Amino acid sequence: MDKKINIGLFGFGTVGHGLYELLQKVPVAHIAKVCVRCPEKHRQEAPELTFTTDRDEIFNDPEINFIVELIDDADAAYHIVRRALLHRLPVVTGNKKMLAHHLPELIELQKEHNTSLLYDASACGSIPVIRNLEEYYDNDLQISLKGILNGSCNFILSKIFNEGMPLEDALRLARELGFLESDPTLDLDGWDSLYKLVILAVHAFGIYVEPAKIFTYGITHMTDADIRFTNEKERRIKLIGHAEKLPNNDLILCVMPQLLSRNKYIYGVEDEFNGVVIKGFFYGKQFLVGRGAGGHPTSSAVLSDIMATRYDYRYSYKRMHCSDLPHFSNNIAFRIYLRYNDPSDIALLDFEEIYESYDSPDYRYVVGKVRLSRLHEVRDEMARRKLFVAAYPND
Amino acid sequence: MDKKINIGLFGFGTVGHGLYELLQKVPVAHIAKVCVRCPEKHRQEAPELTFTTDRDEIFNDPEINFIVELIDDADAAYHIVRRALLHRLPVVTGNKKMLAHHLPELIELQKEHNTSLLYDASACGSIPVIRNLEEYYDNDLQISLKGILNGSCNFILSKIFNEGMPLEDALRLARELGFLESDPTLDLDGWDSLYKLVILAVHAFGIYVEPAKIFTYGITHMTDADIRFTNEKERRIKLIGHAEKLPNNDLILCVMPQLLSRNKYIYGVEDEFNGVVIKGFFYGKQFLVGRGAGGHPTSSAVLSDIMATRYDYRYSYKRMHCSDLPHFSNNIAFRIYLRYNDPSDIALLDFEEIYESYDSPDYRYVVGKVRLSRLHEVRDEMARRKLFVAAYPND
Repeated sequence: MDKKINIGLFGFGTVGHGLYELLQKVPVAHIAKVCVRCPEKHRQEAPELTFTTDRDEIFNDPEINFIVELIDDADAAYHIVRRALLHRLPVVTGNKKMLAHHLPELIELQKEHNTSLLYDASACGSIPVIRNLEEYYDNDLQISLKGILNGSCNFILSKIFNEGMPLEDALRLARELGFLESDPTLDLDGWDSLYKLVILAVHAFGIYVEPAKIFTYGITHMTDADIRFTNEKERRIKLIGHAEKLPNNDLILCVMPQLLSRNKYIYGVEDEFNGVVIKGFFYGKQFLVGRGAGGHPTSSAVLSDIMATRYDYRYSYKRMHCSDLPHFSNNIAFRIYLRYNDPSDIALLDFEEIYESYDSPDYRYVVGKVRLSRLHEVRDEMARRKLFVAAYPND
Repeated sequence: MDKKINIGLFGFGTVGHGLYELLQKVPVAHIAKVCVRCPEKHRQEAPELTFTTDRDEIFNDPEINFIVELIDDADAAYHIVRRALLHRLPVVTGNKKMLAHHLPELIELQKEHNTSLLYDASACGSIPVIRNLEEYYDNDLQISLKGILNGSCNFILSKIFNEGMPLEDALRLARELGFLESDPTLDLDGWDSLYKLVILAVHAFGIYVEPAKIFTYGITHMTDADIRFTNEKERRIKLIGHAEKLPNNDLILCVMPQLLSRNKYIYGVEDEFNGVVIKGFFYGKQFLVGRGAGGHPTSSAVLSDIMATRYDYRYSYKRMHCSDLPHFSNNIAFRIYLRYNDPSDIALLDFEEIYESYDSPDYRYVVGKVRLSRLHEVRDEMARRKLFVAAYPND
């Protein structure tokens, strides 16, 4: 229980710096060395820390018994995490893109080298979703998981729908406050939410699905007309990651905007907060809300993972060993709202039914039923044509 | 990891029966024997189970390696849990009243006999509050915990404030649906919330406070006039358990109704759901919502506790070992709403300031500042005079 934790830290950005500040207030572990690209940049912020640019200095330091990986670059992160596991050094990471692409191998490596990899901070920042799926909801029959998984988009959408801020201003403010990633398409096109959904599906439903197989559409092409339409219906647009097990044992996964009515829990999740609704057969509906971004909330999640090593905690990936794993599928039809430009756009989506349509020189939309598999097939073309599509359920 | 769990179950009420049904769907543990008062009553519901009226039959059965205590009677529950710990049998209980009165001794017994007592189902039903406080929020600096801890009161208040149902009808409906405990004052007077608050304070702040020391006032004396007042202010009444650490390291604990404005998370927690907002210095605000009552949700929480024994999980009560534990205190002033009958009622509460007052033959109220310590002193007299008091914060 009382082994001293000596951390080799990779990265000293928002979260890395947050962890440093947190450990100053709550000195339960020690940062032995930090590997960064430009040590000069950080030496003033944290004069008592030892910085290096050389990964080997971390991996060859016999005092270091724990790796924390908090860098942006998914490829570099993968190599660091992999190396840590090969060295049997427990490792914590927050890199969702890396995890979403390499989880199966990393799960194998944990087993092979009997070493833990924890990453609760990677999905929903401060909310302990993964830990609860692993430790608490693991004995029930999981039905669905839906949520706001990206704080940046939610911040922008909140400013627009709660405060009536124009779209352009909301985007600018998010940029100014540092809420958008260095590559904003990661947030706005839904890729960040997608990576988190892939990770959560592993823990909630026991199956890993390659990101490329999952329909993902963001809010990049949302316009003022879409915002007006949604406001008129007394709804709000939220970017939702959605996982649902159907009675036939198909597992539906997708990321797309949704026009949410007020009676939904996630309707009220504001600003940079994330919110997840998890449904199980017996426990019913659980709703978890917390900050999804920011150095302090995320580093608090990282520290919880670090401290779990004191009792040798590891994810058990229990659901992956179930006998009747669900099958990933895009075979479902959704009621959607589509804002389009040209009649050929409607043909592109191959609607099964159209319930409502509006046509004027500067605003055209339909509400209708389309298959998720079709949306996935034509995703890139939809984006090229700058169409806006959102789930628009009846309830 | 793979020892078979053979449960000796005490009680076969809503939760016990829920556990039986859950284990039929998810057969991860086995109910070896059930101790109840009237076996005849239950034999038809669960013909394959073995019922007994004799506790010894459970404790002397060498096959039984786990005790689950789900009876109503707090005294009997205490003796069962105590005996289980003395026998080194891991035990799960849902009896909040028993825990609120005996936790210090039961914590000692766990240590002495190196045996686990888990009770996440005792506070907030299906929401894993205790487990998250123990395992996830335990490295941060805890600031506050506030929530709707009683599903029955919340059900009644929801019917009144969302659906405009008259008070009398809401009470009747709650009774019909079995949402009120056999002794309804447990719910309505706030005692049930109090017990849960005592338990949560141990895990969130590391100190045990005897229930009798904590100001507790329920909704028994709420009238239509109070409901009208609250509606006019566009607020809702919720019964709130409240724990807050002040900058001087005082810990304030109380249970009372609150006139909540729409911008608060718990404003939207409806029906029999519970909702808790937990604040930490680094992770910020976390909001957890889930069903607080009912056989299935509660038994799902019980099963999570049962399954945790497979990896020898125990609460660490880590916060109790902090060097600067907070001190319980009632030394704080609140802005409250008081509906009273006679001018002497105002004198009784010893207001520090009065901001607003209204007086008519059939409805009199004041809004003012009173000390929590004073409220606690005159609690019984307030109840005798049928006064209604609620926190009424400015925000």
